[in-house]
Amino acid sequence: MTTLLTTRDIGAIVAAKGLAAFLGTLVETLEHDFARWESFDKSARVANHSADGVIELMPISDASLYTFKYVNGHPKNTRLGLPTVMAFGVLAEVDTGRPELLSELTLTTAMRTAATSVLAARRLARADSRVMAVIGNGAQSEFQCVAFHALMGITEVRLFDVDPGATAKLVANLRAVAPALRAVVCASAADAVRGADIVTTVTADKTNATILLPDMLAPGMHVNGVGGDCPGKTELHPDVLRAARVFVEYEPQSRIEGDLQQMPADFPVTELWRVLTGAAPGRRSADEITVFDSVGFALEDYSALRLLRDTARELGLGRPIELVPDMADPKNLFGELHLPAAPHAVPAARAATIA
Amino acid sequence: MTTLLTTRDIGAIVAAKGLAAFLGTLVETLEHDFARWESFDKSARVANHSADGVIELMPISDASLYTFKYVNGHPKNTRLGLPTVMAFGVLAEVDTGRPELLSELTLTTAMRTAATSVLAARRLARADSRVMAVIGNGAQSEFQCVAFHALMGITEVRLFDVDPGATAKLVANLRAVAPALRAVVCASAADAVRGADIVTTVTADKTNATILLPDMLAPGMHVNGVGGDCPGKTELHPDVLRAARVFVEYEPQSRIEGDLQQMPADFPVTELWRVLTGAAPGRRSADEITVFDSVGFALEDYSALRLLRDTARELGLGRPIELVPDMADPKNLFGELHLPAAPHAVPAARAATIA
Repeated sequence: MTTLLTTRDIGAIVAAKGLAAFLGTLVETLEHDFARWESFDKSARVANHSADGVIELMPISDASLYTFKYVNGHPKNTRLGLPTVMAFGVLAEVDTGRPELLSELTLTTAMRTAATSVLAARRLARADSRVMAVIGNGAQSEFQCVAFHALMGITEVRLFDVDPGATAKLVANLRAVAPALRAVVCASAADAVRGADIVTTVTADKTNATILLPDMLAPGMHVNGVGGDCPGKTELHPDVLRAARVFVEYEPQSRIEGDLQQMPADFPVTELWRVLTGAAPGRRSADEITVFDSVGFALEDYSALRLLRDTARELGLGRPIELVPDMADPKNLFGELHLPAAPHAVPAARAATIA
Repeated sequence: MTTLLTTRDIGAIVAAKGLAAFLGTLVETLEHDFARWESFDKSARVANHSADGVIELMPISDASLYTFKYVNGHPKNTRLGLPTVMAFGVLAEVDTGRPELLSELTLTTAMRTAATSVLAARRLARADSRVMAVIGNGAQSEFQCVAFHALMGITEVRLFDVDPGATAKLVANLRAVAPALRAVVCASAADAVRGADIVTTVTADKTNATILLPDMLAPGMHVNGVGGDCPGKTELHPDVLRAARVFVEYEPQSRIEGDLQQMPADFPVTELWRVLTGAAPGRRSADEITVFDSVGFALEDYSALRLLRDTARELGLGRPIELVPDMADPKNLFGELHLPAAPHAVPAARAATIA
């Protein structure tokens, strides 16, 4: 049987562990798996694009586990009462193909994205970073704010969204769960960025936008670019990338999907795993400008699914579903139909026709 | 909420409709969708290979529906009490990305494969075909036999498998559900093929095998090649393909996965949809030898999932699961965590820090 974890189960895991602690464990799990980068069978995700959105599949495997995520991106969904992004995923045994876990990944995607941002920022942002601008105050913004507050020492977030309602929602949520985090509502992106050590861009519109312009940059800034993650969807002016050292998750995918899609094919980037393993330097000086051009990679969902499986086991969460047959005789699939015998079956006479 | 159909639900659908009738409706559904071939966004499946098997994802979409299937192939699984092939899939709305249906597809894959074989054979086999050889008597063999008996007029099947136990299981199952079908157990593949109008090869071993040799062919034969469906997994001698007109589902995938993988890149093939729409001829004479080099294509799972959704609705089968969040406020994903407020929240004081 396959274990099903619903959104409620993920809520129960976070409630039991505490959001900051769970995000911290997720960062550790990600770091462990990114350090094993070369042991994974990787590919760019498979996307089916339509007028209003995209649906993607993100598979990955190592020698023992296979995972994939299904995820959509439909900015108009909120008008219909649906989330912009919905996701679920599966963890399976490589040896047998048996799907062991089926989990919601909508909440989980927001958490693993924030955890990946922190993982990168620990190597790329200045260690004394205290102020973070957050441009785009939608579904993922709380997770970014809480993760950077709890795990990276951010004490003030400067918030901007074209929709003031989104910012008000973010402020209310932060007030409830992170009262020690100072939240400053700003009148523009430029206003939010002024004085920030880290700039997180996490907007949802599927357009080539320039949220962050080169004249908004300051020496030593780290840009955590999260929302430029799809062909035709960018957030950073090309000169922002030119002014910085740029880090990505998986170069072949980021060249197509990231803010990097605006740059020539030979524009230099460094894959994050190389920094984590010491093969490449992270931040080299207090003045350097760094960009993490994050698009979300299958390995992050692999790490998240592995952690969810272990935590759900520990807490006794989830319920079994018969997604694949639990067969009495694995060689007799037809028997699983449990069909009644045909009325005119005459076994004695039939035996004669069998040579 | 997403509707979940388990193996039991598929059994209930088949019991309610009757296997032959359900397979017949599936053939009609496939024919309808193959005729709309050019309206689909198609790609070759994404495979993660390991020493003992493969795990694949098979996405496809048209303007209104998106589907994908997860399927493995692990020939050694039966030793561990697991099926060789396990599968499940999802049907989603293209407009929103909402996953509408999650269904088992292990039983369903066997049914849709047999239905696709019949769909092809109706255009490629002689209409007076009565005898079918079935080489490989494993999990999928009953479905092939029942489908060709009920929908194609086959009255005798000639059976061979390297494992006599597999053949005995097939004979027993056919005796129960299709007593009018004469089943002849044969001592070799050559013996089974002798006198057959249609030859179905549906073996499971992941090897380059030559189950069917050119000297076993007879004029007018149709070869329904089902088991050569993966790189390194073939069943037909190259000269069998050279002696025949060869038909495939989706050429880019079949060149990699089908028996076609043995042939040069310019070896001529015809895609089945072209025959179904009248753009290319099917069988042209009573003497011609035809091969349907079937590997299984995402469109077949699309058709099956669409039919399962409609039939489950009609019969009131399936149950809702919260695979993606059902949100009170779709813009407030964080609220779905239902976290308690932090103990030191002081809303009055906090308000002052909000500009």
